[in-house]
Amino acid sequence: MSRLDFVLEELITANRVLAHEGIVDSFGHISARHPDNPQHYLLSRARAPERIERDDIVEYRLDGTAIDDDGRAPYTERFIHGAIYEARRDVHAVVHNHSPSVIPFGVTGTKLKPLLHMCASCGHEVPIWDSCEKFGDTTLLVSDMAMGRDLAQLLGARPSALMRGHGATVVGRSVRHAVFIAVYLELGAKLQMQAMAMGGIKFLSPGEVDKITARVNDYTLDRAWENWARRAGREMQA
Amino acid sequence: MSRLDFVLEELITANRVLAHEGIVDSFGHISARHPDNPQHYLLSRARAPERIERDDIVEYRLDGTAIDDDGRAPYTERFIHGAIYEARRDVHAVVHNHSPSVIPFGVTGTKLKPLLHMCASCGHEVPIWDSCEKFGDTTLLVSDMAMGRDLAQLLGARPSALMRGHGATVVGRSVRHAVFIAVYLELGAKLQMQAMAMGGIKFLSPGEVDKITARVNDYTLDRAWENWARRAGREMQA
Amino acid sequence: MSRLDFVLEELITANRVLAHEGIVDSFGHISARHPDNPQHYLLSRARAPERIERDDIVEYRLDGTAIDDDGRAPYTERFIHGAIYEARRDVHAVVHNHSPSVIPFGVTGTKLKPLLHMCASCGHEVPIWDSCEKFGDTTLLVSDMAMGRDLAQLLGARPSALMRGHGATVVGRSVRHAVFIAVYLELGAKLQMQAMAMGGIKFLSPGEVDKITARVNDYTLDRAWENWARRAGREMQA
Amino acid sequence: MSRLDFVLEELITANRVLAHEGIVDSFGHISARHPDNPQHYLLSRARAPERIERDDIVEYRLDGTAIDDDGRAPYTERFIHGAIYEARRDVHAVVHNHSPSVIPFGVTGTKLKPLLHMCASCGHEVPIWDSCEKFGDTTLLVSDMAMGRDLAQLLGARPSALMRGHGATVVGRSVRHAVFIAVYLELGAKLQMQAMAMGGIKFLSPGEVDKITARVNDYTLDRAWENWARRAGREMQA
Repeated sequence: MSRLDFVLEELITANRVLAHEGIVDSFGHISARHPDNPQHYLLSRARAPERIERDDIVEYRLDGTAIDDDGRAPYTERFIHGAIYEARRDVHAVVHNHSPSVIPFGVTGTKLKPLLHMCASCGHEVPIWDSCEKFGDTTLLVSDMAMGRDLAQLLGARPSALMRGHGATVVGRSVRHAVFIAVYLELGAKLQMQAMAMGGIKFLSPGEVDKITARVNDYTLDRAWENWARRAGREMQA
Repeated sequence: MSRLDFVLEELITANRVLAHEGIVDSFGHISARHPDNPQHYLLSRARAPERIERDDIVEYRLDGTAIDDDGRAPYTERFIHGAIYEARRDVHAVVHNHSPSVIPFGVTGTKLKPLLHMCASCGHEVPIWDSCEKFGDTTLLVSDMAMGRDLAQLLGARPSALMRGHGATVVGRSVRHAVFIAVYLELGAKLQMQAMAMGGIKFLSPGEVDKITARVNDYTLDRAWENWARRAGREMQA
Repeated sequence: MSRLDFVLEELITANRVLAHEGIVDSFGHISARHPDNPQHYLLSRARAPERIERDDIVEYRLDGTAIDDDGRAPYTERFIHGAIYEARRDVHAVVHNHSPSVIPFGVTGTKLKPLLHMCASCGHEVPIWDSCEKFGDTTLLVSDMAMGRDLAQLLGARPSALMRGHGATVVGRSVRHAVFIAVYLELGAKLQMQAMAMGGIKFLSPGEVDKITARVNDYTLDRAWENWARRAGREMQA
Repeated sequence: MSRLDFVLEELITANRVLAHEGIVDSFGHISARHPDNPQHYLLSRARAPERIERDDIVEYRLDGTAIDDDGRAPYTERFIHGAIYEARRDVHAVVHNHSPSVIPFGVTGTKLKPLLHMCASCGHEVPIWDSCEKFGDTTLLVSDMAMGRDLAQLLGARPSALMRGHGATVVGRSVRHAVFIAVYLELGAKLQMQAMAMGGIKFLSPGEVDKITARVNDYTLDRAWENWARRAGREMQA
């Protein structure tokens, strides 16, 4: 199997997994950098993640123009993906989602921080991007490269960022890595809301976050991936 | 396929989708204006939405009398639908439901407003209709045209209204549009409850609400519809 | 079909429905008064509700002795059922359950009252029985007729009662009626917890509760029953 | 069937049950003491509990070395199991999990105590182990016998302990017993969070906890086990 074939199949599984685990509903998307051409990325046409098939996946240049869309309409927000791949050489997959528990953090300006070891990979603290600061009243959608680059700048070297009134964007070194962070970002947000109602929280220390993050290797990711893929009706690729 | 056939099939799918997505339980209903006669509307006989088949759908005049019910008992609250179609030329579908997260807003008089871009279509602020203000102690059911018209008056030109101790009513320009608003009204209510416990909320600005609402086109609705229909065991009609 | 056969099949469906709708887990039970002998009642042997088959159902005298248990071990708490049938001629079905949302009310002494029209049938206010008041430190289980009668006395003429640290007991004029009340008691409790966090609640007025309760007829119950039975893999009996 | 065969099949069912009931996700594990050699225990290779098959189960010495791993990679945290079997002759099964509702208690230092009769088996009060007290900044994983023994010491003679920022560990006299406690520990934590938001809680009295705990016999465990096993697609062994 070619590297491209592998990544295409990973993307299909990832879309199904994100839907099955409640990280995306009918909206939200995941892309992968093209394995043979780092100036291109792979992303489905505009379709609900749960429904995506191989023929839905389109190859885009970093500026969001399609190599050959063959009439397949793109996601308006594909610029999130291109702008991040442009800014971050280390990133090979990007998830953009509206998972429910992250929303209250964005709209109240509450700092989301890891309190559970499984959530350390979301970073020391998740910054919040507010589209209206530079772009005023919009649809909140990241609908051109200027907005995408502004989001990428706020993200910086971090693994995740919230978007006020909108959702989150998560990046990873592989499709499996980005999905893993997105799943546990949602869980961490849910748990932090509950813990905030109970009293002062002892978050993971910076040292703990760094140690855990360094340890999340392919072995850890694969254990979750095998399980999530099967739940979503897909097999894990070797 | 005739326009009537199309709408009848849409209604069956809509009932299944509303049940599958948790917007109705064994109660609640959705109607469509008759595509060939704007003085009539189409609504199931009194049956749980999850169970509705094509033969359950009855044609009603705006005053709630059936063209030919053939012994099929009507929903007591069909007057919600007729009164709104009477008042609102732009409305082609009406959902009445008791989705769980909207109830606490109605009974505490809390203003429900959109805080997530997906929820902008519920309007700038959702008004609350309280049946006891004009009608005193009742079963809370909208059981005649006088109550229906009172609700329609409170709704005004808006897309949605809450009903104290009872639920919500949502309208749209099509079946898919009304279902879309009802699904995201429930999500918005759930998220607002969580955000209220965390601090001051930055709701969508009026300008953001208007821009997003203007952008919710058939393309957006169809992406959700394909997914929701399949989840509920139905295919999307072309 | 005989009246007894009808009730036996209703009980099987009821057990599956209560499990499927989250009102019981592996514990909890529902009984029916014997249709031909009001001094007897029908209740499964001690088994998880989701697993109950027709051969599991045993006939008991009001004092909790079996007519012929044929080696089938009884629920310890069958005395709840017998004591209520003894005290309440109008009751033909009893549900005892630990549905999650009612528990916080019992342990904090919070008054549970209907705030949604669907929940009016639980009564104007749900009293709380605390086993330790008369019986001191026990397993909290209603394990003899003395405890059962004490609970029945607190219940009085009402449709439902909470049990501190334990659960709830709900009664009805039929199996379908008791299940209906139990399902919406759980929903009402969940919604009241959420509404309490938001501000002062406008509960249903006493007049509204009475009017709604008077209107919950077989027609309403059957609409829910058809749906719940099908969800749980059973057909509704005519 | 040999005692070993019985325990191996129990472990497979237990892994599926814990996953199906939401007590573990892709991480977490359950072990059993070897029925013929109390110095050994049985635990799956590192794999998501939902996916575990008989060939995944490895026999370990109490120090965490495998008898014959045959290339099957171990869970890093197997030392939790060995250290507890070393310290507690009465324990025959150990569950380590990250079930969601226990996490907020660990990170806020809130005392988790039983408020529902079904939860009494978690003990009078659940202590919290904080890895950083003796071991400083780590990955929070119990990755050697020193950490395992420190956790076992905090656990003492109790049935359960929380782990700050990490999860919980639960022990039992059998596989079924440990699973039962873990399931109801999660439920109790969820209910206590809700009750804390409503007012002062009347927890079970110490006498009630003791009486209930003494009564949880095989009969009780088997009623739940039959149901949970079937839900997870497994049959209960006689």
